[in-house]
Amino acid sequence: MKTRLAAARGVLEHLRLDGIIVSNAYDVRYLSGFRGEDATLVVGRGTALICTDSRYWAQVAEEVSGFALERTDELVRDTAAAAARELGERAALGFQGGTLTHADFRLLRRRHGGRLRDVGDRLSRLRSVKEAPEIEAVRCAATMTDGALEAVVAAGLVGRTEAEVAWQMREELHRRGAEGPSFDPVVAAGPRAALAHAIPGERRIVSGELVVIDSGACVDGYCSDITRTFAAGTVREELRRVYAIVLEAQLAALAALRPGVTGHDADAAARDVIEAAGYGDAFGHGTGHGVGLEIHEHPRLRRRSRDRLLPGMVFTVEPGIYVQDLGGVRIEDTVVLTEDGYRLLTLFPKDLTIVD
Amino acid sequence: MKTRLAAARGVLEHLRLDGIIVSNAYDVRYLSGFRGEDATLVVGRGTALICTDSRYWAQVAEEVSGFALERTDELVRDTAAAAARELGERAALGFQGGTLTHADFRLLRRRHGGRLRDVGDRLSRLRSVKEAPEIEAVRCAATMTDGALEAVVAAGLVGRTEAEVAWQMREELHRRGAEGPSFDPVVAAGPRAALAHAIPGERRIVSGELVVIDSGACVDGYCSDITRTFAAGTVREELRRVYAIVLEAQLAALAALRPGVTGHDADAAARDVIEAAGYGDAFGHGTGHGVGLEIHEHPRLRRRSRDRLLPGMVFTVEPGIYVQDLGGVRIEDTVVLTEDGYRLLTLFPKDLTIVD
Repeated sequence: MKTRLAAARGVLEHLRLDGIIVSNAYDVRYLSGFRGEDATLVVGRGTALICTDSRYWAQVAEEVSGFALERTDELVRDTAAAAARELGERAALGFQGGTLTHADFRLLRRRHGGRLRDVGDRLSRLRSVKEAPEIEAVRCAATMTDGALEAVVAAGLVGRTEAEVAWQMREELHRRGAEGPSFDPVVAAGPRAALAHAIPGERRIVSGELVVIDSGACVDGYCSDITRTFAAGTVREELRRVYAIVLEAQLAALAALRPGVTGHDADAAARDVIEAAGYGDAFGHGTGHGVGLEIHEHPRLRRRSRDRLLPGMVFTVEPGIYVQDLGGVRIEDTVVLTEDGYRLLTLFPKDLTIVD
Repeated sequence: MKTRLAAARGVLEHLRLDGIIVSNAYDVRYLSGFRGEDATLVVGRGTALICTDSRYWAQVAEEVSGFALERTDELVRDTAAAAARELGERAALGFQGGTLTHADFRLLRRRHGGRLRDVGDRLSRLRSVKEAPEIEAVRCAATMTDGALEAVVAAGLVGRTEAEVAWQMREELHRRGAEGPSFDPVVAAGPRAALAHAIPGERRIVSGELVVIDSGACVDGYCSDITRTFAAGTVREELRRVYAIVLEAQLAALAALRPGVTGHDADAAARDVIEAAGYGDAFGHGTGHGVGLEIHEHPRLRRRSRDRLLPGMVFTVEPGIYVQDLGGVRIEDTVVLTEDGYRLLTLFPKDLTIVD
């Protein structure tokens, strides 16, 4: 935590601020260890406060050390007062405009006499290079998801509804000790697999369809993320060809991974394969995203990303092809970047598996 | 939906605006029927647009009628452009500062030449008086929770962990057809019951403790919310006395309910009983909150609430007493206000039940 706080102080020194009000809950957890909601941090060069109301005082005492507790009644108002008291009424303060609501910003503006500056995603970016225990938590979550997928496949797909399969994923993750799924599992079969954000429905999976299963577990706050696409029975040639293209694209993106490569480059490695195969328009999302305390965080692997990949970054690689009325394929792993390439954290096999 | 849209237009006419940008996801769903994320509405006197990106176009076509689809690439930027095109570059626009981030507000400010006004919670308040099918959805969710609680009690409490009981609640809700729990179930036993926001842990429930179980189901997007406090085995006199006080307070608040009463009054009815018994400081939260598409919405039943209770409003009544190191009691029902009082939607019995 001390190293993390020092990095946050590096941000405020770089921006010539006297302090930063941290309101993004993931950043609050990362910097202080606090797992609850409705807390802010006030971080100055020599100050570290955690501000929260009576519901959480016992929890703060258990989870947080190295921060003074500021007892609040109204969070933003009392945080502003604490910052003025600790750092001066004219202090130059950073805030997080990407998560602070405009109403809360106005409250802060009314209560603080000094300069206010949006620090953007600078604090959240501190989370993108992971420490060993963080990587271990994601790996552990990934192992649970691998096991849960195996159990789902063993139970079969044909004749079950998407919602039934999604619930089984949830049960299998629970049985393996996950705190929860890292997001609501996606199970999308047949034409619904063409929707990148389908909600599992009551339609029964029939033989001849592709089934996209996208899920993850949460361990000690850290997320895993994996997608596999299965063949429910024998699927026709076009779907198998699409599967082969997506797999080739995914392997190409993985092969491109090494320190210094940008998110744009990694995305292009996958996208080139899909475009060359004539499916460029059918790949409507980015190739990947960072994974950690948040299911979507830095770095971004996509066209317009300038993020430079560094050892210790944990992210997904997940190209896909979605063809309306026909179906879709997505293949996604969570990986950690290493000095000479990458290490897979999700290990479930990627050859097209036929499941009855 | 037409009545709802007319009510939203009433808000913009009242505020002399040309249009409102709706960004609160619950209000988007309420006004348009759209169940996805990442969409905004542009509502003008004669205009109704829904703005979202390619992931949701198929879903919009399924779920939404009466709104023109604006296909977006970058949501806030393209929403601002659509509003300017439909309503004029100098249009006076309302926005929702309580959910719009400050960064998005600045984007909107840069893109729009006309006046911008925060409409606060005026749109969200339109949701507080429910239509019959909305009440029916909450009732259905409440019935599922009643049944789930019965099953949990039948399985016993002593010797199980809080986390095991919480998972069973989840399973029982799923088995009864809930879309999901309306929030992560709270199971807090013994001294942990003194924390109003405890996360279920791995500690085993022992005989002689009170166990607070707070949970709800989600049906067709609508939430239920119920808390019961059980005695794991025989509990000592002081805990039984605290239970009796909370029950008396809850019944007093219910008895005070009728059209025209304020949230302050209903809160006072419960609070007076608890204060008279000498536990005023141990009741640190409000007496209730509205329930609907959101688990916490208008009206508010608490000290500083001026909300006036009207027939068709659905809300909780949930006083509690929390004594550090000893334990806690909360008794909560979801009710609908009627012309001459209220109707309980949660029907689980409220006498102190001893569960082994």
